[in-house]
Amino acid sequence: MEKNLFDNMIQDRRKIHMCPEEGWTEFDTTYYIVCRLKEMGYQTILTGRQMIDPDSVMGRNPAVVREAIERAERDGVPHEFIEKCDEYTGAVAILGSGRPGPVTAFRFDIDGLCVQESDSLDHLPTKQGFASKRSGRMHACGHDGHTAVGLAVAQWLIEHQEELNGTFKLIFQPAEEGVRGAAAIVGSGLLDDVNFILGSHCGGRAKLGQMALVHGGVLASIKYDIFFKGTPSHAGSSPQTGHSALMAACATSMMLVGIPRHGEGVSRVAVGTLHAGEGRNITPVHAKIECEIRGETEEVLQYLAKNVEKIVRGNAISYEVESRIEKAGYSTTLIECPEILETLREIGNEIPEVKEIIDLNEPVGGEDYTLMIKRVVEKGGRGAMFRWGCNHHGHHKGDFDLQDTESMSMGFEVFTRFAKKINGR
Amino acid sequence: MEKNLFDNMIQDRRKIHMCPEEGWTEFDTTYYIVCRLKEMGYQTILTGRQMIDPDSVMGRNPAVVREAIERAERDGVPHEFIEKCDEYTGAVAILGSGRPGPVTAFRFDIDGLCVQESDSLDHLPTKQGFASKRSGRMHACGHDGHTAVGLAVAQWLIEHQEELNGTFKLIFQPAEEGVRGAAAIVGSGLLDDVNFILGSHCGGRAKLGQMALVHGGVLASIKYDIFFKGTPSHAGSSPQTGHSALMAACATSMMLVGIPRHGEGVSRVAVGTLHAGEGRNITPVHAKIECEIRGETEEVLQYLAKNVEKIVRGNAISYEVESRIEKAGYSTTLIECPEILETLREIGNEIPEVKEIIDLNEPVGGEDYTLMIKRVVEKGGRGAMFRWGCNHHGHHKGDFDLQDTESMSMGFEVFTRFAKKINGR
Amino acid sequence: MEKNLFDNMIQDRRKIHMCPEEGWTEFDTTYYIVCRLKEMGYQTILTGRQMIDPDSVMGRNPAVVREAIERAERDGVPHEFIEKCDEYTGAVAILGSGRPGPVTAFRFDIDGLCVQESDSLDHLPTKQGFASKRSGRMHACGHDGHTAVGLAVAQWLIEHQEELNGTFKLIFQPAEEGVRGAAAIVGSGLLDDVNFILGSHCGGRAKLGQMALVHGGVLASIKYDIFFKGTPSHAGSSPQTGHSALMAACATSMMLVGIPRHGEGVSRVAVGTLHAGEGRNITPVHAKIECEIRGETEEVLQYLAKNVEKIVRGNAISYEVESRIEKAGYSTTLIECPEILETLREIGNEIPEVKEIIDLNEPVGGEDYTLMIKRVVEKGGRGAMFRWGCNHHGHHKGDFDLQDTESMSMGFEVFTRFAKKINGR
Amino acid sequence: MEKNLFDNMIQDRRKIHMCPEEGWTEFDTTYYIVCRLKEMGYQTILTGRQMIDPDSVMGRNPAVVREAIERAERDGVPHEFIEKCDEYTGAVAILGSGRPGPVTAFRFDIDGLCVQESDSLDHLPTKQGFASKRSGRMHACGHDGHTAVGLAVAQWLIEHQEELNGTFKLIFQPAEEGVRGAAAIVGSGLLDDVNFILGSHCGGRAKLGQMALVHGGVLASIKYDIFFKGTPSHAGSSPQTGHSALMAACATSMMLVGIPRHGEGVSRVAVGTLHAGEGRNITPVHAKIECEIRGETEEVLQYLAKNVEKIVRGNAISYEVESRIEKAGYSTTLIECPEILETLREIGNEIPEVKEIIDLNEPVGGEDYTLMIKRVVEKGGRGAMFRWGCNHHGHHKGDFDLQDTESMSMGFEVFTRFAKKINGR
Repeated sequence: MEKNLFDNMIQDRRKIHMCPEEGWTEFDTTYYIVCRLKEMGYQTILTGRQMIDPDSVMGRNPAVVREAIERAERDGVPHEFIEKCDEYTGAVAILGSGRPGPVTAFRFDIDGLCVQESDSLDHLPTKQGFASKRSGRMHACGHDGHTAVGLAVAQWLIEHQEELNGTFKLIFQPAEEGVRGAAAIVGSGLLDDVNFILGSHCGGRAKLGQMALVHGGVLASIKYDIFFKGTPSHAGSSPQTGHSALMAACATSMMLVGIPRHGEGVSRVAVGTLHAGEGRNITPVHAKIECEIRGETEEVLQYLAKNVEKIVRGNAISYEVESRIEKAGYSTTLIECPEILETLREIGNEIPEVKEIIDLNEPVGGEDYTLMIKRVVEKGGRGAMFRWGCNHHGHHKGDFDLQDTESMSMGFEVFTRFAKKINGR
Repeated sequence: MEKNLFDNMIQDRRKIHMCPEEGWTEFDTTYYIVCRLKEMGYQTILTGRQMIDPDSVMGRNPAVVREAIERAERDGVPHEFIEKCDEYTGAVAILGSGRPGPVTAFRFDIDGLCVQESDSLDHLPTKQGFASKRSGRMHACGHDGHTAVGLAVAQWLIEHQEELNGTFKLIFQPAEEGVRGAAAIVGSGLLDDVNFILGSHCGGRAKLGQMALVHGGVLASIKYDIFFKGTPSHAGSSPQTGHSALMAACATSMMLVGIPRHGEGVSRVAVGTLHAGEGRNITPVHAKIECEIRGETEEVLQYLAKNVEKIVRGNAISYEVESRIEKAGYSTTLIECPEILETLREIGNEIPEVKEIIDLNEPVGGEDYTLMIKRVVEKGGRGAMFRWGCNHHGHHKGDFDLQDTESMSMGFEVFTRFAKKINGR
Repeated sequence: MEKNLFDNMIQDRRKIHMCPEEGWTEFDTTYYIVCRLKEMGYQTILTGRQMIDPDSVMGRNPAVVREAIERAERDGVPHEFIEKCDEYTGAVAILGSGRPGPVTAFRFDIDGLCVQESDSLDHLPTKQGFASKRSGRMHACGHDGHTAVGLAVAQWLIEHQEELNGTFKLIFQPAEEGVRGAAAIVGSGLLDDVNFILGSHCGGRAKLGQMALVHGGVLASIKYDIFFKGTPSHAGSSPQTGHSALMAACATSMMLVGIPRHGEGVSRVAVGTLHAGEGRNITPVHAKIECEIRGETEEVLQYLAKNVEKIVRGNAISYEVESRIEKAGYSTTLIECPEILETLREIGNEIPEVKEIIDLNEPVGGEDYTLMIKRVVEKGGRGAMFRWGCNHHGHHKGDFDLQDTESMSMGFEVFTRFAKKINGR
Repeated sequence: MEKNLFDNMIQDRRKIHMCPEEGWTEFDTTYYIVCRLKEMGYQTILTGRQMIDPDSVMGRNPAVVREAIERAERDGVPHEFIEKCDEYTGAVAILGSGRPGPVTAFRFDIDGLCVQESDSLDHLPTKQGFASKRSGRMHACGHDGHTAVGLAVAQWLIEHQEELNGTFKLIFQPAEEGVRGAAAIVGSGLLDDVNFILGSHCGGRAKLGQMALVHGGVLASIKYDIFFKGTPSHAGSSPQTGHSALMAACATSMMLVGIPRHGEGVSRVAVGTLHAGEGRNITPVHAKIECEIRGETEEVLQYLAKNVEKIVRGNAISYEVESRIEKAGYSTTLIECPEILETLREIGNEIPEVKEIIDLNEPVGGEDYTLMIKRVVEKGGRGAMFRWGCNHHGHHKGDFDLQDTESMSMGFEVFTRFAKKINGR
């Protein structure tokens, strides 16, 4: 790639790395993206509420969003911009060539994590001075790199628009962590006219120099927040008048992990957190469980989901407490479009940075980009996902790094060559 | 007491002892009682269905009753008698003096237990040859003695009827074990005109020579049979299509014992048996729990009962199984009528066999005679319960004996002196 | 196959069908097999204890075996034969050619099930008068057919011994149901010199005319009987002195089904039966759980096994009860020897009865023949398993039938052609 | 009481009310008490570590104490004073008459609560401007009044020391809430020479004008913090390598509430809070339970305690996690010394403020003063507890008030008249 594009990409990545924002709070990041896109000359840019279907939003805490808006304004994000976002984050740049041709969407996710970045000098961002400036927040999954690749791709596309037909939609998606954001973009209808969609992730099992074609292996998942509300009482003098939300949550947890295995596909049930009770000698009034289910197929997932609902409903009755289930995230399995993977394989073979192409199919964590491919395929299009490799000690850890100067150009190359192949004049 | 009466009493007890019948199957016993009452000259004798409200019957297995009827007929109980009983056991003798006066009821319970009688020669019934002839069945709680005392009292009353006013109702109650039978007699309305009621039990804390006045300490209790019905599936190939009655029963058991204590009275929850499942690798379809709750007050008992229902209902939903709760027994707390206890104390002081009068008030097992006193008191009458002592190694054990020749006459004396005191001309 | 052999095979199958014996009680069946083998001229026949390692025996109830021995003697099995068996069942015929060559083992399982055979005239064994004569017992899985095929193969081998090199071991295995018997034969060392082993099962997914090559899909499994022993107490008066085996079993069941899924292979946990408690108001002293675990690999199985042990041990402490775990069965995964499967495919292609060859690889129930292949492979040999098809309504059901005259000859052909191919001169 | 003493008492109470400090952090309060005692002329004053046995300390968080010390220093408490306290709070004033006579101890507890004080103008402290200055902290149980009564008693004693024999120990106890502090004072040996001990509490069932003699009804209690430490794993990809502290805590909670009732006394088990887990898709590493047990007798309490330990130990094994139980509080039942209660009744009859004397015996919350009486009685002394009444809306609530000008003088009168009666010359 050209030096100019490369330098911008590295600079973008490092700036974004310094200000990680967790899902649904990416106001600084969205503003940065939009400013960069405008500099490049993009005229059609959707932000926040314009590209988000609020009814499909999951795992978003309004109080946390409000705090994030205040912070963003303190950071200098203009009030008018915030107002335009209308409480939601993310951006989409649309580039129409004016010529007929495919609608091609690229997806880049932009959110960071609640992880404390390593202050070791062995950690490159720390050593080179671009570590997170927000304590307890970090781009520990590489979405900073994804975003920077997306901006570089955006710049390349606008510079080469005369060589391209059709239309591009560059999606800068919020809240991928916890698989919370994709459904809201799908719900907005943005993908309903898309013919081709391409997404990527850095790292995982793909090491530096490897390009991975993802055939499957993504478990469908639903994330739940389960709430119980009981009745207080003094545990010493009148235990009989209390209804313990804590006990309902414990019984629910015991039952959740006991949902029978499914004979037709891998399943997972995890109870990740449980917080309940107000004081040692008071019958607990509030309980909250954060849990998740995963299934090898949508059928397995829905089987688990049905059981979650029954269990919560049953325990609400057994313990005479109120219950509420909130869907805090959702992703599906990866639909495989073999011909697109073959196109990517051909592209990979032409890219100097790609030393090896690997094929991935084993179960890994969820990815809500699966919802986007699903919608595109349902509407008659096709799509795929690839990984551009980097060496790392594990995602979501304080010492995660992606070797930006060595790894990111592979991502850039795949996206831009795909654009040429699919939309080239 | 007169030798004649005494000899009959001992003979009656021993005959009854040889043919113990568990609750609701006392056809031989009922027939024996009715024959004896007729011999004495009683003309108004209600049996079985005539004194039982079927809607209030608890803990009665129709299949077991059918077998008992066949057995009774084999034993020589006439078919017409069985027909008159109409599938129910128990008898009531009514003796009207023709003169105005109190209606006084005496209650004697008649059922045996599923206990194997000791074959040790240290055990008096075995040594003297009147041990149970029915394997695995035994009068191990002394109700044979109660019944024989009742028959002796009956004989005395009819012999002394000219000295007595008002009316007597001698109730030979089935199915006291498991507190199953009293509610059905109460439900029949038999007690609604009763002014005074007296009941007794042998032994317990009352040793030979002691008469005990029972002030309270009887916990109210409900016995439950809980059934779950699930859906089978092969546990290896399609665990997801099964719904386990066993797991519903386990969760129910865990929750039952966890019902919060009551701040205003002692409570008990016991899960006594659990039987579930058909085979190692099949999702269990059937589960049955036998449990019981006890409370120091009716309020405590009803609090527990409400929780049992909620828990069963909730787990039926959580595990997607059918549930059914059967009330297999019920007794309440003992209402104390202090003036009747004082009357008994006076009577006791006059009886040579009574060496000491003791007062009982600590929690012990349940007794469904409590339902009878309750109804009598509700209708404006009064009642009481006493114990006539015997030395024993524990009720419900294979070596239980009540030393009939030494202990039973105390019971006879209390009942007959009470009759004279209350109904004497 | 020759008419004579065929007629014997059908007659053998029907005779065996009439006397089904559950695992470890097959004394009549073993005697029948041994008599037939002797008629054919076999001289080396091991029976019972001679081929069984008692330390590896699982799921065998000595009391049930004693009853079976009495029954067998009543049925006319000679006392000396029983003595030779020394309380164990099963037989092995060894046929040495006297010429060097491979040691080839064939395995036929011989046990029946506790299933009531259908008395419908639509059910062939009933219609034709060879239904089970033992109420509640039935050859409902086709092992009668397996045994008869084995006898026909035995006859063919001895008739064709001059055309064959090496040695044959014909294993008539007891107690395959519940995967209990194979380990005891493996433990005896019988397979340690075997070069080739072949086993089969009728039916399953193989329909009439189909021969199935089994590549895998057999989950490894352990069957457990878990016992808890508590302390009794009166649940009303002194609940604090009791230790409930029932509650320990319930908590154990809840935890067993909650063992986390394994990320590297399918797992199963099933709690099939739970029986606990002696009476409604007595703290339960005895509890027994029948359960099983299954794993896609031995690693997954051993992970589950470790958890079962921890859970039982932990609950014994929590509830202050004694615990005991008995391994009631064990089977492993199927080791695939592709070249043997190819040999079978070639053989299948030559057999007129084989209309179609299918390949099976999906998870099904366990099969303890897997332990035999495993041992043979460990010792440097190879082996395989195939199915000969029949149309059926489901194994282990009262109307299971295998259409003996149409289906069994396929099994015979595969074994004998395999013998010729591997051991032919 | 004299106006001067009264005015000081009200002023002390209001100053203390403004600076509530939770248990083990009462550095400001201790300093205030010590300053006031010095002003009065007390020469022997023990503080903090001098009167505390660290090995008997319960429910004390060193990190919270460190923060409290910093705060106290910011509030102006001299560094040397803090150093003398040596990280512990509380004070004891000793007044020796120089004449032989009884050693009499008075106990006043000094800690506040984590409760937000009401800002309603109906709430007297708010209306009159002496409400808590510490947000989220409040003297919501009246210990401010107890302390002020104690200071007034101290002043009276030193003013009347010439009229008194023997020795007085005025104990200003930290951390009564959660029954955490008394054991540490007992452990210091301070009470081992005490002949008489008197303690009091305001309010409860004693209304304004009532003095209550406490005969019993205080349940013995232990407060526990239970910790589990598990092993993390990714719940999607490798659930089998995790060990969930959360599930161990849930199972523990289910079992704790299921500890069987005790047949010989009231029991309570309460699981008040449960906090577990780090993230939705990570096997939870940390779990903490705050719970408590209560018993009508020490035997019942120790029965429960033994079960808590077994359950925690068992679940640590079942779930392969580490466990730790911390005793966060302990109190026992109230030993009744009838003659001291009679002395108090006589005193009450002489006090004009006492309109009615009531006798309390029903179960209420715990009180760790019970440990002090117990030690005194064990060493041959005697003691008692009384209540001086006030009208209130419930202790531990934001609108608790004790009507200082009307109620506190009763407390003062009882203590000082008791001093005169027991230690008068």
